[in-house]
Formats: sequence, structure tokens, C-alpha cells
Amino acid sequence: MTRIRVINPNTARAMTAVIGGAARAVAAPSTVVTAVNPAMGPESIESHYDEALAVPGLLAEIAAGEREGVDGYVIACFGDPGLDAARELASGPVVGVAQAAMHAATLVGRGFSVVTTLSRTTGRAWDLARRYGFGEACLGVHACDIPVLALDDPGSGARETVAALCAEAVAADGADAVVLGCAGMAAFAGEVAGRIGVPVVEGVAAAVKLVESLVALGLRTSTRGEYAPPGPKRYSGILGDFTVPPS
Amino acid sequence: MTRIRVINPNTARAMTAVIGGAARAVAAPSTVVTAVNPAMGPESIESHYDEALAVPGLLAEIAAGEREGVDGYVIACFGDPGLDAARELASGPVVGVAQAAMHAATLVGRGFSVVTTLSRTTGRAWDLARRYGFGEACLGVHACDIPVLALDDPGSGARETVAALCAEAVAADGADAVVLGCAGMAAFAGEVAGRIGVPVVEGVAAAVKLVESLVALGLRTSTRGEYAPPGPKRYSGILGDFTVPPS
Amino acid sequence: MTRIRVINPNTARAMTAVIGGAARAVAAPSTVVTAVNPAMGPESIESHYDEALAVPGLLAEIAAGEREGVDGYVIACFGDPGLDAARELASGPVVGVAQAAMHAATLVGRGFSVVTTLSRTTGRAWDLARRYGFGEACLGVHACDIPVLALDDPGSGARETVAALCAEAVAADGADAVVLGCAGMAAFAGEVAGRIGVPVVEGVAAAVKLVESLVALGLRTSTRGEYAPPGPKRYSGILGDFTVPPS
Amino acid sequence: MTRIRVINPNTARAMTAVIGGAARAVAAPSTVVTAVNPAMGPESIESHYDEALAVPGLLAEIAAGEREGVDGYVIACFGDPGLDAARELASGPVVGVAQAAMHAATLVGRGFSVVTTLSRTTGRAWDLARRYGFGEACLGVHACDIPVLALDDPGSGARETVAALCAEAVAADGADAVVLGCAGMAAFAGEVAGRIGVPVVEGVAAAVKLVESLVALGLRTSTRGEYAPPGPKRYSGILGDFTVPPS
Amino acid sequence: MTRIRVINPNTARAMTAVIGGAARAVAAPSTVVTAVNPAMGPESIESHYDEALAVPGLLAEIAAGEREGVDGYVIACFGDPGLDAARELASGPVVGVAQAAMHAATLVGRGFSVVTTLSRTTGRAWDLARRYGFGEACLGVHACDIPVLALDDPGSGARETVAALCAEAVAADGADAVVLGCAGMAAFAGEVAGRIGVPVVEGVAAAVKLVESLVALGLRTSTRGEYAPPGPKRYSGILGDFTVPPS
Amino acid sequence: MTRIRVINPNTARAMTAVIGGAARAVAAPSTVVTAVNPAMGPESIESHYDEALAVPGLLAEIAAGEREGVDGYVIACFGDPGLDAARELASGPVVGVAQAAMHAATLVGRGFSVVTTLSRTTGRAWDLARRYGFGEACLGVHACDIPVLALDDPGSGARETVAALCAEAVAADGADAVVLGCAGMAAFAGEVAGRIGVPVVEGVAAAVKLVESLVALGLRTSTRGEYAPPGPKRYSGILGDFTVPPS
Repeated sequence: MTRIRVINPNTARAMTAVIGGAARAVAAPSTVVTAVNPAMGPESIESHYDEALAVPGLLAEIAAGEREGVDGYVIACFGDPGLDAARELASGPVVGVAQAAMHAATLVGRGFSVVTTLSRTTGRAWDLARRYGFGEACLGVHACDIPVLALDDPGSGARETVAALCAEAVAADGADAVVLGCAGMAAFAGEVAGRIGVPVVEGVAAAVKLVESLVALGLRTSTRGEYAPPGPKRYSGILGDFTVPPS
Repeated sequence: MTRIRVINPNTARAMTAVIGGAARAVAAPSTVVTAVNPAMGPESIESHYDEALAVPGLLAEIAAGEREGVDGYVIACFGDPGLDAARELASGPVVGVAQAAMHAATLVGRGFSVVTTLSRTTGRAWDLARRYGFGEACLGVHACDIPVLALDDPGSGARETVAALCAEAVAADGADAVVLGCAGMAAFAGEVAGRIGVPVVEGVAAAVKLVESLVALGLRTSTRGEYAPPGPKRYSGILGDFTVPPS
Repeated sequence: MTRIRVINPNTARAMTAVIGGAARAVAAPSTVVTAVNPAMGPESIESHYDEALAVPGLLAEIAAGEREGVDGYVIACFGDPGLDAARELASGPVVGVAQAAMHAATLVGRGFSVVTTLSRTTGRAWDLARRYGFGEACLGVHACDIPVLALDDPGSGARETVAALCAEAVAADGADAVVLGCAGMAAFAGEVAGRIGVPVVEGVAAAVKLVESLVALGLRTSTRGEYAPPGPKRYSGILGDFTVPPS
Repeated sequence: MTRIRVINPNTARAMTAVIGGAARAVAAPSTVVTAVNPAMGPESIESHYDEALAVPGLLAEIAAGEREGVDGYVIACFGDPGLDAARELASGPVVGVAQAAMHAATLVGRGFSVVTTLSRTTGRAWDLARRYGFGEACLGVHACDIPVLALDDPGSGARETVAALCAEAVAADGADAVVLGCAGMAAFAGEVAGRIGVPVVEGVAAAVKLVESLVALGLRTSTRGEYAPPGPKRYSGILGDFTVPPS
Repeated sequence: MTRIRVINPNTARAMTAVIGGAARAVAAPSTVVTAVNPAMGPESIESHYDEALAVPGLLAEIAAGEREGVDGYVIACFGDPGLDAARELASGPVVGVAQAAMHAATLVGRGFSVVTTLSRTTGRAWDLARRYGFGEACLGVHACDIPVLALDDPGSGARETVAALCAEAVAADGADAVVLGCAGMAAFAGEVAGRIGVPVVEGVAAAVKLVESLVALGLRTSTRGEYAPPGPKRYSGILGDFTVPPS
Repeated sequence: MTRIRVINPNTARAMTAVIGGAARAVAAPSTVVTAVNPAMGPESIESHYDEALAVPGLLAEIAAGEREGVDGYVIACFGDPGLDAARELASGPVVGVAQAAMHAATLVGRGFSVVTTLSRTTGRAWDLARRYGFGEACLGVHACDIPVLALDDPGSGARETVAALCAEAVAADGADAVVLGCAGMAAFAGEVAGRIGVPVVEGVAAAVKLVESLVALGLRTSTRGEYAPPGPKRYSGILGDFTVPPS
């Protein structure tokens, strides 16, 4: 049995439910997925400010997961917030959904377009693409400018808007695959793929399969150097609970 | 049931058996792995000449797999020979073992060292790392200068030599993960990892898990543009069987 | 009069005092420097975990500075934690000390070596160099492996150790300038420069001058797109105070 | 006397004749050009599949050339198929036409546009540009979508189409030179250049001059490391003739 | 007191006056700015030919500055002509206006557009952006095709044209800052910024502040290696005065 | 008949003679080589200062060549001084010796080492390698620290020193070719190649063959945009002769 914890780093429970559904839909029979979100932090992530402040809650969930013997983690926000810190804390592998989607897209196409929510987040998508090595494979990042929490509102027309933008993006970029750039689009992939005729990669599902794969391969984050567990440290104020005691 | 064909592109059957074993050791219960090698071509791959001439046999195996309804393919030679051509021919995903190992290594560490067989192949490893986006993550490529077919000769001391070189490579490169750079090292990963204390990624196993993942995600190679099936074409001479008839 | 706030993002007051001294030593007569540190978070920053958890306190100090009419900010930790988020929140310019030091170093030399504290942070220094455009100008990152809080302990021999490592780094890398890679080394620059005969750039001082320059030039962070102020958002739990009310 | 063999790697004899003519038109008086094509393989090269399967025939022609004392080789297909393998086999220099054209273009302009045949091959052109170091100098790759074998059909209007596309490409890309991206366009260069007023580089001619130059300079492919002659190896099946006997 | 010499490398005195005004407008009270131009060379710089031939006059002004005890220099032409040579000759820091503007722009935005004079100089702007590390931050270079000496002719409508082009460039490039690409636009920045609502960086002002900053930090160009003072050398002909006597 | 002018941009006539000899040794029978040097400028080029001040004399020689109907030019100094300006002025192609040598080296090997004269010039060699697209192919730049004018002094032992350094460089860099990094080493190539067993590329000879090739191909520098002839311009002072009159 493989225990995978999928962490939605914002506090919107409805979105956590959608994400959990997408994760379970692709998980292997022997995988147990738990989808959680922190009790602290922003209700959605739509700026660097939100993203930075989502990390304490995310790390609290990783710490809880470690106490419960979780085998691997998915960070279910397309900015992959706190990925490096989470890797230090977790003994098993940690994969972000942007990372997972970009890795998978490069395995089925030459170059991908990203379709995301707000224009102000396109810079972050480019930063991640370059950080992961996909600065050339990423051919364009496009925003639909629908707020994150409106994505699953049936009245928003979000699916149609996203599908249409995906089609435009592929044509404009000369791409042969699409990456959906928000965990809130986790339920859209099949429908969009059906409409536009190229592979559409959704990060939550991709990340679950990559974590399962790493666990099956016996691969954990390296503890040599950068990702070694954080050393003992005293924390103050409202973050006092993050203190790392001497081991 | 997922049918994965692992193709050793050289004609050395003993090596195919080793590779098949490594593949099955990590495959999911619902995956059926068949390990094959072509009837034509070189008995091992140790030069660009060998690699180029291994491709016709590889493509013949892909064509056979298509007739048999295979779901996805692994190219089990660290040069990932014929990967682009194979993707045109196969309806399901195709992953090379160098590609798979490099992808997996970047999910568990900051930077990896590659340990391969012959010095003359180190340039190819660098080319692949850059092609896949891992030109910065790949910190060094090191050769043990053991011929491919000697790797599984117990008298060669290959395991000890490879393990020692992995330890040296990690220290010299400041790496926190190792990629084994030959499908013939498929049985070494566990032992080497145990000795050197960093994640050791072996490509055959990694590729099997990635192909399983892509199949589970419903992702196939894009047919928009570059990887569309090859059009009808007449082939001559000893390669006449590769003719693509009008559809 | 230009009001510059220098924020030490950890809670170590003695280090804040050292940093404030370094800032005031180079500030223009018409500049008023205030050096502060948050009441919450880690007592020093030595991992991704620490760095991520230093950001809430940093952002609280930025928010306080905005209420007080601060003209520009320095983030006084070499990982430049929270820089993007701080830029969204502040109306005036925000500069990180790694950023400032690397910019200044490239104005007085061809290529620089970074000398930092712990080995585990060298990856972060490389990430920043690449993010800022100095992936080629940065020729090496070297760690002295002295804990941050021991730097200003006279008995630690830190100055001598750092100076010796700077000399070695320049020789090994073929560099013609040095960047000191920790705000805790703010008082070392003069002495090290005197010993090794190449420009030694210390980030706190460099950042103060860059912020003064941007203010004098009338340049503020762009609010077009990525760095626009964060929109209204409800925050929960211990981070409830970070709520952005509707404007 | 310099003996240069120009190898059209497909089996279309008419195309070989065109290529041979273009080669002889620029060759020095002391150069003897022989233009050949293999007896095996595809009748034109329009996919990765075709390209990979053109290599055995190409290598057979190199081997024949070696027996006849050829001084240098041109691979006359814009994908430069089998270039690395050919270099291992040949004692004299081997130059591909894409490589030659790109090198020449960067000597007479700042940035070039490539105009090629089929859209599906544009990715290959980009790969080569990056491999040869011209990822920044290559400003665009444009396809006219005329099949290779229709290029020299006077009724196809291919010259006019290609010339018009070259003019558009230069304007769209801000280029100041054009590279013709198919050996089948070998007879077009003069006419296109006359129409659009920028240098138009055709690879067959460029490659002949580069091979002549390398021979005159006494430069052969290095045999240190990667391009050393392939070692002895047994080949099986229909590729048995490629066996490299012990020397 | 800090003595900064701003060198307009062409012989147009009216332009020197404009540049000097822009420099003094931002200089600190304790800074003395002298704006000069050479007695030799081109009356404006609009080609590589002009730029190369502006360098002797520039170096003569640096040499004069050294005799007079100047603390730092600004090269006030957007091509940054002679920057490396000037650094060898000057004991204090030397900053070019393209360099300064690009550095400043990356401190207040994600990516900048350059708006320059003639189309033929856009390649030079790209070269400089890449040389300084800003190949990714520079999102576009746009020419208004107004001759340099017409910029300050009120009848030319240059300000309106430049402002309109800046607005177009930002929209087309997705930029959040603008760099003015000619020292002759030194008086335009305020007006343009007011119109388009993003930071507009003008290089003369930016360079003055950077030179002041470096002087305040005690940073001079490194003399280790590349920028060491030129050794003794005999010069002939009309350039005989550039002889470097044995020291 | 092809008239090629090889311009040694310094005033050392003995060096011009050596360079002319190397050029003639490889020129085609139908090529007429004239080797010249300016009457003005430095007696050798060993710094950015020297290089910048060699350009006026170089351009005067180009202008003279244009009056005489020269077909193409070689700039015979490894810094390729004035290359862009020369291209604007010349109607035929202009090639620098660093450029030529690097182009040729990448046609016969995977990666090259540069062996040059003074340590202070290694940065310039790296700049050129990157500018020409060979930032990855250039594996190392090594200085023998012999002054340029001592190279052809038989008593200096320069040949032995250079040959030994070439051997060291190839081993240290893992290179399979060597580029000689000074036109003053034009007579060394054969001897060095004989000793170290890898291709040794000397730029003067390589540039002559490339210019011959471009002329034979009918390729001239593009006049679209950046390299258009410089427009009319008044020049003052000792550079008054460089005035470009209205056409």
C-alpha cells in the first residue's frame, strides 16, 4: 500500500474535494490518497503574496503527514509553493503539480503551451519552466483571467473558455501538447483533450502517478546536501510551533 | 492490463533477459512486460555507428508491437536510439531509458552525475541531457570503460568498479543523485545505492514506471505535427520491408 | 529625506544590529535607515525550511513599513526570501542583498566568486544568480561551513576563515571579484578586500545604495501585471492578520 | 586533386543529379565531385522514421568511399542524418548541408530564417540549429509544405512559392539572411537571392566549399574520443554486412 | 565630494548639454558632474563604424579624467562603446548607460522593452543585453527610426513618437518596464513614464547613481586579470598620443 | 581571380609577414593574398585598450581595399577587432581569425580548447566563443603568457611551450581539437598537431579558406539592416579622414 497525501495549499475545501477526486481517479488500486488543506493561510492563491503565505500551512501538513507515515506528497497548486522546503521535511518524495505536468508533457510532445488563470501568474509559470529545465519546451503561457475559485462554478463558463484558449494557444505557439496551469482545472483535462485533439496534461493526476512511480522505484529525495532535514532551530511568535527541536 | 514492450536494441539476448528482469521487478501487478531484441543489427551499442544501425531493428520491433496491440514502449539503451522515429510509429507512449532516468533523478535531487560505460559515449549523454532540458541538472558524465557485454560477467568486477566510480562522481560533481548510464547496469542500482547513500536511478525501471504512468493518464504521443505517423513511402533494397503503404 | 527599512528576516537581534551598522555606514546623509527584524519566525536562516518560514515575518515588516511611509526596503538575508511577494506589497522599491551584491559585482569585474556559510545553501545561491541573469558571471559558490550565528563571535575565527576562503575561491574560479554570501558577514568586507586585493562586495551596503539610487531616480516596482498589489483575500488561522481587505 | 563524395541519403536518382550539379557548380577546378545515393532505404526523407532509415544506406556509401580513397563527404539532406556515425567511419571530414548552410549564414548576417519543405520537419531544423550553436542566430523556421520530390517539378510552382515564403520569413523574423532547408532546393538559391535582396545560403554548395576548405587545411575529424573509428562488432540479420571485423 | 565625468562619445555639443543636464538632475549634492565630449570622431553614433571610431576620443577623455582625479565615469551612448577599454584605463568605476538602464530596469520589473533610435542598432542592444546577463529580461527592442541629432529638435515630434512606441512595445512584449535606448532621450523619461504608467528607465541618470553608489561602496574595477591597466606599448601615426610609456 | 586582403591590425611588420605566409600557404592557386598592416595604432594587441585603438587603422585598410576592388577580408588578430564595423564598410565578406578557427574546429571535433597568449585576454576569447554560438563547444581557454611579439623569437621557446600547453589543455578539458588563439602562432599549427595527435586549427589559414568559400558561393555580408553601409557623417579632429560624405 502506498499512502500519498495531496495537499491543496489554500483553505478552500471545495477545491480540495475536486483535487482529491482527480487524484483518486488515476491512482493505482494499491494507493491510498488523502487530500487535505491547511487550516491557516489564504483561501486561494493568486499572487506571490498568497503563494508565500500558503507555505507555512503546507509545511504543517507535511509535518503531520510525516507523523502519520505518508509515503509521498503532491503539492496541488500550479506555483509549486514551498517545494524545496517540503523536500527537506519529508522523508518520501514530494512533487509539485506544475513540475509533474511539465515533465509529463515533454514525454508526449515536442513543446507545450500552458493555460493558466490570472495574467499576473504567467511570470511564475515561466520561472518554474526554466527552473525544471523546460525553458525551451515551454512555448507559451496564456491566461484566461478567471479567478481560481470561479473555475468550478458551472455558471462561469470556465470549461468552455479554457478549452477555447487551449485551442488558440496551441495554434499560436506551434505546440503539440497543453499543460493546464491550475489545480482548480483538475476536472477539465478529459473534456479539453477531446475538443482540441492534442494531449492535455493536468498536474494533479500527473503528480500522483509520478509519486507512485518514485515510491515503487524506492527513490526518496536525496539527503546529501541541499535537501538534508533542517537542523534544530528555535522559532518565535505565532510560528513557534515550527521550532525544530534538537534530535 | 497494460502491455509494455521493453526493447533492447542490440542483439545480445542475455542482456535482454537482465533488462526484462529489471523491468518486471518494478512493474505494477496489472502490467505485462515483454522484453525483446531485434534479429538484426549490432550485438552491443558502443559508438554512434552502432547506435544508428540499431535503429532499423528497433523500429521493426515497434512495428511488431503495434500489430500486437502494445500500449507503450521502453527503448532500453542509454543513448535512446531512434526515439523520435519510434514515437512516429507507435500509437502509445515511447520512453528512452536515459530520458526516464534523468527525469526521475531531477525529481529526487538537485543535480545528478551520470556513470556510463565507455568514454567515447560521454558526449552522447551530454547531448541527451541538453535535449531533455537537463543541461544544468547534469553535473558530470563519467565512464568506467568496461565494455557493455562485460558488465554482467561476475568475474569482471563491474559492480564494484561502478559503485566506486559513482561515489567518486558524486563527490567530484557535488551531485546528490546518480544516474546509471547503461541498460546493462539494470541490476546494479540497489547495491550501488546502498553503498553510496544517495538515490541511484536506473533507467529501465524508471522508464517502465513512466510508461505505466502515461498510459494510466491516457496520454499518448501527440500526433499534431512532428510526431504524426509517417506518410506512405516506398523503401528499397534490404530495407524494403520498411515501406509504408498508402493507408 | 529617504527612509530605507533594512529587514533582517530572522529574529536574531544582534545580527540586526550588525546589519544596521553596515547599512548606516554607507547611507547618504539624507537617508534614514531603520534596521528591524520580525517578532515571528526562525532565529537564523540555514535551510529552505527556515527561509520559507521567515517570509511571513518579513511581509509583516513590509506592511508595517508601508503604514509608516517607508520609501524603500532591503531584504537582508542572502537567499533574498520573499522578494517577489514583498514587491507586490511595497509601493517603493525592494532589493535583496544577494541581488544587490551580484549586480554590483558585475559592474566592477568580469566574474565573481560567492563565499557563503553552509554548503547546503550553495544551490540557492546558484538559483538566484541564474534568476538575476548572472549564471555566467557567477563562477563559483563556496561554503565556509560556519553557522550564521557564529559569524560575529570573535572566538570563531570567522573573519580569518572567510578571508582565506575568498582568496582560494578567486584563484580556483579565475574570478576578479568576490561576493560575500551572508548578511552576517556585513562587517567583513573591508578587511577581506584589504587582504585579497580584489573588490569584495557585501550585499547589505550594496542594497542600501541601490535602493537610494532607485528612489532618487523616481523608480518604483512596476504595478503592471506580476507585481500589482495583491487583491482582496481572506486569510485563516494564525495567519488571519495577513487578510487583504477589499479596498 | 580533392575527391569529394556528395551523398544524397534517399534513393531518388533525379534528386541526386540535381544535387550533384549544384555541388559541381561551386567546386574548385582541382576538386572531383561524385554524387551518389544508396541502393537501400526511403525514396525521400520527410519524417524521423525516413531519416533514421536513411542512415544505413548512407553509411554503406561512406564505407564504399573509404575503400575508394575519398577525401571528404557531404551529407546532402537537411536533417544531416547519420552525421556522427559517418564521422566515426570516414577518415576525412564529413559535413552536413544544414550544418554548412547555418555556418555560412552566420558569416554573412546577424540572423537567418530557414525555409524548409514540410511543417513536421521544423522541429528537426531547430534541433540542429541548437546542436551547432546557432540557437540564437536562427530566428525562424518556415515550411512551404511542398513534398520533397515535387520541388523539381516545373509544374509545381515550387520556386515561386519558396521565393515568396523566403521574403515573408525575412520580414517576419527580422532576419538578414536565408537558409534553404532542403537539398532538393539546391538549384533555387540564385533565383531566390535575386528576388529578395538578402544572402540566400544553399547547403549543398556551402558544404562542398567547407569540405574543400577542411581538406586544404589538413583537418580531419578528430579521432580522440567520441569520433574514433568504431571498434570490432558482430552485426546480424539483414545488417550483417555492417559487421566491423577485428583490425 | 565625488567627481563624476559623463562622456558623450560623439562631438555634438548640444547633446552633451542635454546629457549633462540629465546627469546633474539626479546627482547627489556632494557629487560634481562634468559633461564632456571628445574633439575627435563622429558627430553622432548610428552604426558600428561610428561606434568603433568614437572610442579613441572617449579614451582620450578618460585619460584626461585620470590626470584630473575623476572618481568615476559614465559612457553616455547606448551602445556602451569602449567600455572594456575604458575600465582598463580608469582607476575608478566606469558604467555605460545601456548597462545602467538595464540593471535598474531589472530591479523594478520582470521584463523590459528597449525603445531606441535606428533599426540598424537593435542588434547591438540585444548583444549588450545578453552580455550583461539580461537576455531573458529583455523582451523586445524597438526602433523609432528618428536620427539621433533630431531627437531634441522640438519640431521633430520625437517625444510623442517615442512615447507612443513605448506604449506599443510594452503591450506587444508583455513588459512591465521600459528602457530608453539612446542618451539623446535623456530628457524624455519623466514625460514618457507619466503617459504610459510603467517605470521608464533612462540610462544617463541611472548610470550617475550607479557610479555614485560604487564610489560610496569603495568599489573600483578589479585589476586582477582582464581589467589590469594596459602595459607599456608604442603607438604610431595619428594615434601616437595613445602610447603607453613604461611606468 | 579572388583578391583577399589579410589585415594584421597592429603595426608589427614582421608579424604581418608571418601572417601573410600562413595565408598564402593554404590559398587556392586563383587567390591573390595581400597581407597588410595599418600605419597607425599599437605595435601589438594585448589588452582591450590596444584592441579598441587598432580598429581605426583596420578600418582605414578596409577602406583602401574597397578602393582597390578587394573581394574579401581577413582580420588577423584573435580578438576579431572591429569585425562588425568592417562588415559595414566592405562590400565583400569579412571573417575574423577567432571566428574562422572556432567554426572550423566545430566541424572536426566535439569540443575545442583555445590556447592563447596572455591571461588577461582569456575573457575576450570566451566572449567571442559565446557571440559566435560556441559557448558550449569551447571547453577551456588557456594562456601561455608569452608576449605576442616574442612568439616568433626562436630563442623564446614559444613553440615548445605552446605545444606542451595544448597537450595539457586537451587532457584537462576533455577536448578533441585545439584552436590556436593568436595570429602570431600562424606558423605553429603543423608542428603542434604532429605532437599532440588532435586537429589543431589556426585562424589565419582557416579564415582565408572561409573567405574564398564565401566568395565562390557568391555570398556577401547582408546589407539588410545592421550591416548596411554607414550613412553620411562628419568626423572631426585627427579622425577627420573617416568622414563619410553624402553619396
